[in-house]
Amino acid sequence: MPLTPEQDAEIAALRSQPQPTLRVVAPGMEAHLYRAIPVLDHGFVRVVDYMGDDAAICQAARVSYGRGTKSVSGDEGLIRYLMRHQHSTPFEMCEVKLHVKLPIFVARQWIRHRTANVNEYSGRYSILDREFYIPEPEALAAQSVVNHQGRGEALGAEEAARVLDWLKADAARAYDHYEAMIATEGQQGLARELARMNLPANIYTQWYWKTDLHNLFHFIWLRADPHAQREIRVYAEAVAGVVRDWVPAAFAAFEDYRQQGVMLSGKAVAVLKRRLAGETVGFEESGMSKGEWREFAAVWGES
Amino acid sequence: MPLTPEQDAEIAALRSQPQPTLRVVAPGMEAHLYRAIPVLDHGFVRVVDYMGDDAAICQAARVSYGRGTKSVSGDEGLIRYLMRHQHSTPFEMCEVKLHVKLPIFVARQWIRHRTANVNEYSGRYSILDREFYIPEPEALAAQSVVNHQGRGEALGAEEAARVLDWLKADAARAYDHYEAMIATEGQQGLARELARMNLPANIYTQWYWKTDLHNLFHFIWLRADPHAQREIRVYAEAVAGVVRDWVPAAFAAFEDYRQQGVMLSGKAVAVLKRRLAGETVGFEESGMSKGEWREFAAVWGES
Amino acid sequence: MPLTPEQDAEIAALRSQPQPTLRVVAPGMEAHLYRAIPVLDHGFVRVVDYMGDDAAICQAARVSYGRGTKSVSGDEGLIRYLMRHQHSTPFEMCEVKLHVKLPIFVARQWIRHRTANVNEYSGRYSILDREFYIPEPEALAAQSVVNHQGRGEALGAEEAARVLDWLKADAARAYDHYEAMIATEGQQGLARELARMNLPANIYTQWYWKTDLHNLFHFIWLRADPHAQREIRVYAEAVAGVVRDWVPAAFAAFEDYRQQGVMLSGKAVAVLKRRLAGETVGFEESGMSKGEWREFAAVWGES
Amino acid sequence: MPLTPEQDAEIAALRSQPQPTLRVVAPGMEAHLYRAIPVLDHGFVRVVDYMGDDAAICQAARVSYGRGTKSVSGDEGLIRYLMRHQHSTPFEMCEVKLHVKLPIFVARQWIRHRTANVNEYSGRYSILDREFYIPEPEALAAQSVVNHQGRGEALGAEEAARVLDWLKADAARAYDHYEAMIATEGQQGLARELARMNLPANIYTQWYWKTDLHNLFHFIWLRADPHAQREIRVYAEAVAGVVRDWVPAAFAAFEDYRQQGVMLSGKAVAVLKRRLAGETVGFEESGMSKGEWREFAAVWGES
Repeated sequence: MPLTPEQDAEIAALRSQPQPTLRVVAPGMEAHLYRAIPVLDHGFVRVVDYMGDDAAICQAARVSYGRGTKSVSGDEGLIRYLMRHQHSTPFEMCEVKLHVKLPIFVARQWIRHRTANVNEYSGRYSILDREFYIPEPEALAAQSVVNHQGRGEALGAEEAARVLDWLKADAARAYDHYEAMIATEGQQGLARELARMNLPANIYTQWYWKTDLHNLFHFIWLRADPHAQREIRVYAEAVAGVVRDWVPAAFAAFEDYRQQGVMLSGKAVAVLKRRLAGETVGFEESGMSKGEWREFAAVWGES
Repeated sequence: MPLTPEQDAEIAALRSQPQPTLRVVAPGMEAHLYRAIPVLDHGFVRVVDYMGDDAAICQAARVSYGRGTKSVSGDEGLIRYLMRHQHSTPFEMCEVKLHVKLPIFVARQWIRHRTANVNEYSGRYSILDREFYIPEPEALAAQSVVNHQGRGEALGAEEAARVLDWLKADAARAYDHYEAMIATEGQQGLARELARMNLPANIYTQWYWKTDLHNLFHFIWLRADPHAQREIRVYAEAVAGVVRDWVPAAFAAFEDYRQQGVMLSGKAVAVLKRRLAGETVGFEESGMSKGEWREFAAVWGES
Repeated sequence: MPLTPEQDAEIAALRSQPQPTLRVVAPGMEAHLYRAIPVLDHGFVRVVDYMGDDAAICQAARVSYGRGTKSVSGDEGLIRYLMRHQHSTPFEMCEVKLHVKLPIFVARQWIRHRTANVNEYSGRYSILDREFYIPEPEALAAQSVVNHQGRGEALGAEEAARVLDWLKADAARAYDHYEAMIATEGQQGLARELARMNLPANIYTQWYWKTDLHNLFHFIWLRADPHAQREIRVYAEAVAGVVRDWVPAAFAAFEDYRQQGVMLSGKAVAVLKRRLAGETVGFEESGMSKGEWREFAAVWGES
Repeated sequence: MPLTPEQDAEIAALRSQPQPTLRVVAPGMEAHLYRAIPVLDHGFVRVVDYMGDDAAICQAARVSYGRGTKSVSGDEGLIRYLMRHQHSTPFEMCEVKLHVKLPIFVARQWIRHRTANVNEYSGRYSILDREFYIPEPEALAAQSVVNHQGRGEALGAEEAARVLDWLKADAARAYDHYEAMIATEGQQGLARELARMNLPANIYTQWYWKTDLHNLFHFIWLRADPHAQREIRVYAEAVAGVVRDWVPAAFAAFEDYRQQGVMLSGKAVAVLKRRLAGETVGFEESGMSKGEWREFAAVWGES
């Protein structure tokens, strides 16, 4: 369970006190506020605050004095236009603040998204909790032989069990020694900033992370992608679910133009035009490398 | 008057519809929402949206599950500590969105603050209004002879009148020709993106501008400074007034540590230590350049 | 002519003094260094400094100890892979510093690219030159009736002549008054920071602008696009020519995947798949808006 | 030793091939290029490339056509002026690219400096080396009782030995199991992206890191500070040594205004003014909190 009863109580208290505001309110987001969406075995994503909604995107694009909305269909059309033409600044006018609990090896990928604000739980100041990501057996897979940085076939049961035994035992021992090093009974007690170096990358950390909608879409695009490591993908998918409830029109445009869309190279355009004209065009005639062709053919077929 | 009756009505409508929210509410900011604070002769600053308050800064610094507040005095102490030690990330957890109407030459200084989101009224798509910044006579001043990029003595009445005549006449003529060029009666009508090049830098533009509190403090620090050009300083001061109402504890810390604070160089520290020890230390013994000394002596005296 | 004989002499002097370096040298860039590429009537783009080359992109992607190059074809394949998969960070490892002279209305679009370093000629400190962008008659066009923010048909000769007369006369008069206002003979002389507000947006300014290759590609993609205003497009094209000489492999990948590439929405993918399967699919069956369809059909035909 | 003989040979090869360039050359940096400066037990900092020098800062500040240098003393004065008045953009005109090998817990602090470009060695694609930071016994210290996030007294010999035994044994065991998990003999072999989660935070990683001089000064200011964790401080000090050789005038200004400088709050200014006027002003009369006073008194004395 990611939350303690005390934490659940704090969240319930926060949700019991609506206050009046003159700001834009996004009903889909109010439903999410403060609640923890569980991710992996001990992690979560929680919306702590947000700014804006679909109409706020249009309001900024129109630099309007009032709400800036014309009609729902007018707004949807504008949002699709903005997304299609890479007019990213109106999407930057929405902002979200999340509280995320995540393994350190996931945090190290996540932090690479630089246009965001972050406050992480301090291992210099505080003691880290004894919580480690231990994958479910079916998440354990072998190194991929096609994609040199991904994973392929699931491990057999015996090998998986061996892996899990090591992960659990090493994490437990490392944490035991972490505790023993910082303990102050009968000894001085090592500084926390030093003792934490003994802890493995699957220990959980947590942070407040705040970003705008444009950068959030980019995060989701890259990290909810099938090429992303599964352990960050499940976080990106949880975030995507939140965004869908928050700004449904913008999310629909994002899905259509980015997630379900395809970027064609000039070479790929040429192949498709020839095929549409009735030609049979395969790898040999494409001018593409093997890798490019594999990705192209996965969508458009071998010939 | 910066706003039309229609715009005033739109704002009144927005302010008449409070809605419940579970988010943090900053009462000082609710009072500002949507209202135009007049700046210069036709400009304004309006708060369109905000996220967070003083407690949100502490909540992020503590990475807490609930509201994160301990006590008002505990929060103030933490905020002062964060400001003193340049821990900027918790301040980034507050965000504000402004609608600003401002002369183009002010906009060109403002936009240099890069960590912000901007949507500007488009002179390619829309027709700019006939509104120009014409300074009040007492704002007209001669080039400074001390500070090579500032202004010094106020102009005499006659010279000021001559300047104002030119500013007004040139602006009026430029706008007449702008209108004449884009008119489509009896001619094709020049594209707006071209015609606008005839308009002077004192014409007003407007934009939505969104940034976080850390970067906003930096903006205020540099732009509300006496060395800043007066025409951007009045905007920065209007923004500062808003921030004071929004996050009173953070603003008080900002005032104490930045606006009323002083950055001493190593050389200046040495001079002050010698003076505290009873020595008389003047320019000759300071090791400073003339410019440095002038700034130092303005605070600490010549000897 | 954009440069004075003195400036030409300074540039010649800089080009006459090669020095040994252990850094990576890009021959295509050495040929450009310091030379002004003329743009518009008085503007230019000059390369002032650069860091990296095609191999440096691969070196960073591989985090190598030595040069990091395997083979030219291996590097090209890696660069195409990185571009195709949006791995932008290796491209950020190349950097360029430009000196650009450009009209203010172009500068106002350019500055919107925030991930860059800028030092602009100061109109507070210095006196601006009497140089204005006056379009060639054939560059004068009417407001587009299709694209609401672009330009359409060229103006007729008579209307064009009228426009040019106004642009020239207004610029000349504005500058005369600027000079008269700042003059210190027989009067105090208005501060430069104020007098400049009388100058129109087609006056030239100049700046040093430094950015990395990833952000430069983004700049070129958006600003060398047919939808961009012609006056910034010619700058973007001049920059593109420089980049092609600097990092030929990266530029070729950029051209193929971005400039000649096409981003298909999910809806567009569906239409193409049905067409490839032999169906006739037009606007009615596409599910697209009129605007989307117009852009789609321009590439792929109406049915 | 941080480098293998092969790596040393690659570096020697790179240093043996000077080439002519027309760019600015910084002799102090040429001497550093490619060479590894050892940091901690297995880490290093290497300069891979650089752009600019002291004169380039002035050239950009003056937006000049030629080299932009007036005189060495004129340049130094300008650089000090820019530093004193927070004119940061000219410093951004210098850029440096480093190759750094560092423990993961140091990398996690370093990466928080967002205005930089990074390519890190990929633990998804590659196998991490068996190299761990094991502190020297004298670097082991207890949690500070004054500064809640730092370290205080050195550990006694017996306790230090116990800590080191755990750190070494746990790292060795974790790496043994990492190797055993990814091995493909007699089993499928776990994906690298999963196996790495077993490795502790003191394992070494490496990256290419590129930033501009303004942001580098900020990095050094915060990370070479006595409050920074020692393990990142030694990296920041190594970087500072490089910068001193690269841009001596800018570094001297940075030292004087930042590292040896002091930021006084308004309250501190008031206390010093009263003391200079002959008053005895202690904690009671200062209006400061205990923490503020402790820091103030450390520089200026208790009364």
